Amino acid sequence: MEHTIKRIGLLTSGGDSPGMNAAIRAVVRACKYYNVESIGIRQGYEGLIQNDVIVLGARSVRHIINQGGTILKTARSEEFRTAVGRKKAYQNIQQNQIDALIVIGGDGSFTGAKIFAEEFGIPFIGVPGTIDNDIFGTDFTIGYDTALNTVVEAIDKLRDTATSHDRLFFVEVMGRDAGFIALHSGIASGAQEILIPEKKDSIEELIASLEQSDKTGKKSSIVVIAEGEKLGNIYQLAAQVKELKPQYDIRVTVLGHIQRGGSPSCQDRVLASRLGIAAVEALLEGKTNLMAGLRSNKVVYTPIEEAIKKHNEIDQDLIKTAQILAI
Amino acid sequence: MEHTIKRIGLLTSGGDSPGMNAAIRAVVRACKYYNVESIGIRQGYEGLIQNDVIVLGARSVRHIINQGGTILKTARSEEFRTAVGRKKAYQNIQQNQIDALIVIGGDGSFTGAKIFAEEFGIPFIGVPGTIDNDIFGTDFTIGYDTALNTVVEAIDKLRDTATSHDRLFFVEVMGRDAGFIALHSGIASGAQEILIPEKKDSIEELIASLEQSDKTGKKSSIVVIAEGEKLGNIYQLAAQVKELKPQYDIRVTVLGHIQRGGSPSCQDRVLASRLGIAAVEALLEGKTNLMAGLRSNKVVYTPIEEAIKKHNEIDQDLIKTAQILAI
Amino acid sequence: MEHTIKRIGLLTSGGDSPGMNAAIRAVVRACKYYNVESIGIRQGYEGLIQNDVIVLGARSVRHIINQGGTILKTARSEEFRTAVGRKKAYQNIQQNQIDALIVIGGDGSFTGAKIFAEEFGIPFIGVPGTIDNDIFGTDFTIGYDTALNTVVEAIDKLRDTATSHDRLFFVEVMGRDAGFIALHSGIASGAQEILIPEKKDSIEELIASLEQSDKTGKKSSIVVIAEGEKLGNIYQLAAQVKELKPQYDIRVTVLGHIQRGGSPSCQDRVLASRLGIAAVEALLEGKTNLMAGLRSNKVVYTPIEEAIKKHNEIDQDLIKTAQILAI
Amino acid sequence: MEHTIKRIGLLTSGGDSPGMNAAIRAVVRACKYYNVESIGIRQGYEGLIQNDVIVLGARSVRHIINQGGTILKTARSEEFRTAVGRKKAYQNIQQNQIDALIVIGGDGSFTGAKIFAEEFGIPFIGVPGTIDNDIFGTDFTIGYDTALNTVVEAIDKLRDTATSHDRLFFVEVMGRDAGFIALHSGIASGAQEILIPEKKDSIEELIASLEQSDKTGKKSSIVVIAEGEKLGNIYQLAAQVKELKPQYDIRVTVLGHIQRGGSPSCQDRVLASRLGIAAVEALLEGKTNLMAGLRSNKVVYTPIEEAIKKHNEIDQDLIKTAQILAI
Repeated sequence: MEHTIKRIGLLTSGGDSPGMNAAIRAVVRACKYYNVESIGIRQGYEGLIQNDVIVLGARSVRHIINQGGTILKTARSEEFRTAVGRKKAYQNIQQNQIDALIVIGGDGSFTGAKIFAEEFGIPFIGVPGTIDNDIFGTDFTIGYDTALNTVVEAIDKLRDTATSHDRLFFVEVMGRDAGFIALHSGIASGAQEILIPEKKDSIEELIASLEQSDKTGKKSSIVVIAEGEKLGNIYQLAAQVKELKPQYDIRVTVLGHIQRGGSPSCQDRVLASRLGIAAVEALLEGKTNLMAGLRSNKVVYTPIEEAIKKHNEIDQDLIKTAQILAI
Repeated sequence: MEHTIKRIGLLTSGGDSPGMNAAIRAVVRACKYYNVESIGIRQGYEGLIQNDVIVLGARSVRHIINQGGTILKTARSEEFRTAVGRKKAYQNIQQNQIDALIVIGGDGSFTGAKIFAEEFGIPFIGVPGTIDNDIFGTDFTIGYDTALNTVVEAIDKLRDTATSHDRLFFVEVMGRDAGFIALHSGIASGAQEILIPEKKDSIEELIASLEQSDKTGKKSSIVVIAEGEKLGNIYQLAAQVKELKPQYDIRVTVLGHIQRGGSPSCQDRVLASRLGIAAVEALLEGKTNLMAGLRSNKVVYTPIEEAIKKHNEIDQDLIKTAQILAI
Repeated sequence: MEHTIKRIGLLTSGGDSPGMNAAIRAVVRACKYYNVESIGIRQGYEGLIQNDVIVLGARSVRHIINQGGTILKTARSEEFRTAVGRKKAYQNIQQNQIDALIVIGGDGSFTGAKIFAEEFGIPFIGVPGTIDNDIFGTDFTIGYDTALNTVVEAIDKLRDTATSHDRLFFVEVMGRDAGFIALHSGIASGAQEILIPEKKDSIEELIASLEQSDKTGKKSSIVVIAEGEKLGNIYQLAAQVKELKPQYDIRVTVLGHIQRGGSPSCQDRVLASRLGIAAVEALLEGKTNLMAGLRSNKVVYTPIEEAIKKHNEIDQDLIKTAQILAI
Repeated sequence: MEHTIKRIGLLTSGGDSPGMNAAIRAVVRACKYYNVESIGIRQGYEGLIQNDVIVLGARSVRHIINQGGTILKTARSEEFRTAVGRKKAYQNIQQNQIDALIVIGGDGSFTGAKIFAEEFGIPFIGVPGTIDNDIFGTDFTIGYDTALNTVVEAIDKLRDTATSHDRLFFVEVMGRDAGFIALHSGIASGAQEILIPEKKDSIEELIASLEQSDKTGKKSSIVVIAEGEKLGNIYQLAAQVKELKPQYDIRVTVLGHIQRGGSPSCQDRVLASRLGIAAVEALLEGKTNLMAGLRSNKVVYTPIEEAIKKHNEIDQDLIKTAQILAI
């Protein structure tokens, strides 16, 4: 980086996650603390192309640390995938005298930033904001902890009615590629079975598990299924089980978008606050092409290529944990 | 009633609702207070037929006031709809020396009790336990308030993500025959439109309302739809709107069974506690065929025929309230 | 009222309560609906004296229905108690062309409005916003339901630790003059004893109740005490009990100001929305000196003198309810 | 360890924390899975002395994963600090054929176990259950995450009323020796200042910070103070600030025991589940005198001496984080 950074642009991109606002607030206040300007770009990369930007001061981010969503909004941008789109974006970078970028989002958002940085030499730092927790280089992504609590509170409610009616509940949770939410929320809510894309599942094993559950005297059970489960979608799975075991009183619940919202948990607020500051500090130290993350409560930086290519892996130990607990 | 009541049987029937446990606790402790025995019947009328009963003492209902569901469980009973089934049930009433019944449930459950009482002369009092709030004779049914808070908290979360993405959310809430949950939760969550079975809706009006919303500068909106909406189910409605207004980024969320569970709200606990006691007191005063309810914070009793036949009506005033607020 | 109302001023006064923002939103949107202007007065009567006002449009109240507190802020005004202060206030009323006032607050706030209206002939409607529920003319005041849920959730947490340690917890809840919060939250959280200003309590009866509780096998108990309890403050009471029963492991918790905040419950949002609209409608119909309230789910108006003089009375029946449940 | 382990005793000791029940459930189910018996000891070490034990099977721990507190209860035991007391305890260990112990608690509890193990050669594993997070050898202790969320939700409520009234709130949170709860919850709730025992604080700096806050236009602020703050207790601090800055409208809230209770967060449930299983597995592998912990989502074991002597240290980086965010 040849020039001093005087102005940092920041944007949120991809699916929103609780804690993104806390990260925005931290970036803005760290900029103020280190005496550089911060400029918010609305609607992710789309806003960079449309020049939809706003100067942010320390007071303009007050009372947002406890709010879900993102005040900068987020969107998918097809145009940013084209060279023409990115050129427009860069022109706006120049026009707004933005010296560096902070991108809060998932690996798709980081890939966009990486290409953009390579093309135009703009320094950037990524901050992992996604409920899916599948990003390499951090113990937790921003929003994951809140999503887990939302799911667990919902399943706790379902269990009340499952128990009262001796029912079997199939619950779908988010995670198209990753089973983190399903596995952790399933363990925490005492699920009988947890189906995730990373694990080879079969209807036979599922049935066997449910029969085992019957034998131990359980009258009601919860099965947690990740959105991206390869065995089939939740309605197909419920139908298959019903066909083989017609005596089960099965109910299907798809938790859906409530998992993306809500006031962030303490952990997500602190995580987002630390990583937002860490991103600013890294840029001011001349670093670029990194993702800020947390490992064992310490800030660490990971090359963005690694953060994109590698994925946070499901701990096999946890799959066994789930089995032991369902005994 | 010719004979003194020495033993009261109680059951929960129909869909479970938060606060049923608080009502059970209140019945059991009021029995203790007035020196009569209480016997719990499991699985609703099915348990009466199967003789699945348990003697309940004051300590056996501790630490349940804050729990969703019903410790007595609930079930639908086809057999109780038959004369043969009811005869079996009565034999168990006699065998267990049950002198009177308290039935916690909805109007279907009350109808069963009424027929049973007419056939066998067993005194009974109904306690309105349902999240739907559609029972005549009480300002609120047990579980309704908790369900409303569950829905509103869920929609608050959806709004975070709706706002961040400039999306239109269609949210289905419970209510097969009644729009209480939809109307009240829709007002409380700032819905643009609320579709309920009691109101004549049309796609044209819905579209017009959304277009009006666009004009006022709203970028995201919530439409709350009762399960029993006559215009079509939520997926059909979303598809119809999408066809007419393809520019809308629509998401559908069906809240489902989380609405039935959860720790009851303060109001539901107090309501259930009062009505449980009121049911015991009514029986001991020789009353029967009544439903205990609350009107303006006072316990009132309504003839069970009225509670069954009449329905709590949606306040037309509230429909206008929703329109004014969506301006 | 001789002149047409074209502009309505609104303010929140006294202690804040959850739902005040929902009421503000409803007033502003009803004004828009009925084509009159709305002007917000900040800091209650103090803002009227200081001319701290802001024109409010339909969009300026978006996303506040779910927020605790009041965007108009609230304050006590010593100056408004003086004729000089009220004269200044009236000059600002004239300068801002405010034709009528809506006052959201408790009986103290209504008294101020009544005097002001008598002196200067300005029409006004009161909206009951206080967590204390002690205002005559409505089943519930705005904020009461949310406060109850906050208290009950807190005591549920205390019970976990009380049970784990076999402890006796004394919990103080708000209510300087009224025991509504204490009585309802105490019933809902399974309190052994509830001490409120409206009931004659004694240390002897409290001890007797705790001894009775020991006899029934209870190992831990909760005593809920209203702030305004006449027998003494919570620390004195705990000390007196400890002296007489040194074997008790007593802990004291004063819940304090958390009871005033938080996202309003569904009921408080709907109540506030209805009363806000009702206040505007009343003014436009030429009514004045009334308080809008809700009785059995219907809007009712009460002369402001009655709302001030009479008080919502504790239901004696509920005191017995508490005793029966603690058996 | 010379003999095979056939029966594991488990107890919870010290202050209760949310997630202890999840740990108990995990220990019991892991014992079942590995075909050893589990026996619960009530009231911590006191129950070992009193021989207050209960055989626990897989079904006896159902529906407790979501409950705060500990079904085994906990207590302080003066007698266990004496050689005579420990001898009694060991006799009961022998009588109940307990081959190894799992102790869920804090460092005080571990110290007791260590002495006991040294004296009588009984293998044991510690599981860190405390809300204080001050134990070396794990990223998080069981209950800490839930306590943080409880505190943050409470301060979010206080902020509503602080903002509405332009007030300054002093909030005391738990932590006699450690500032973890104060520091993390303070960052997450946007506190202006955070006072903790690990940091040298002064009234002058506190006043300077509040004055700085005034200058930036903040009208209300939160100061979070750890119970163990060395500068003085919260009432003294508030009085000192009031004396120097009489214009501040200060309110004091002591959050107290609500921080120990409540349904555990997802993270606490998963953490407790993993460590409970890990403790059983360690014993069966012949390990002893270790504490099971989690580092970067992996189970790790730490010698119990280290877990007792070293302490989890406050990250200095976080103190700076708090300062940057308060700008």
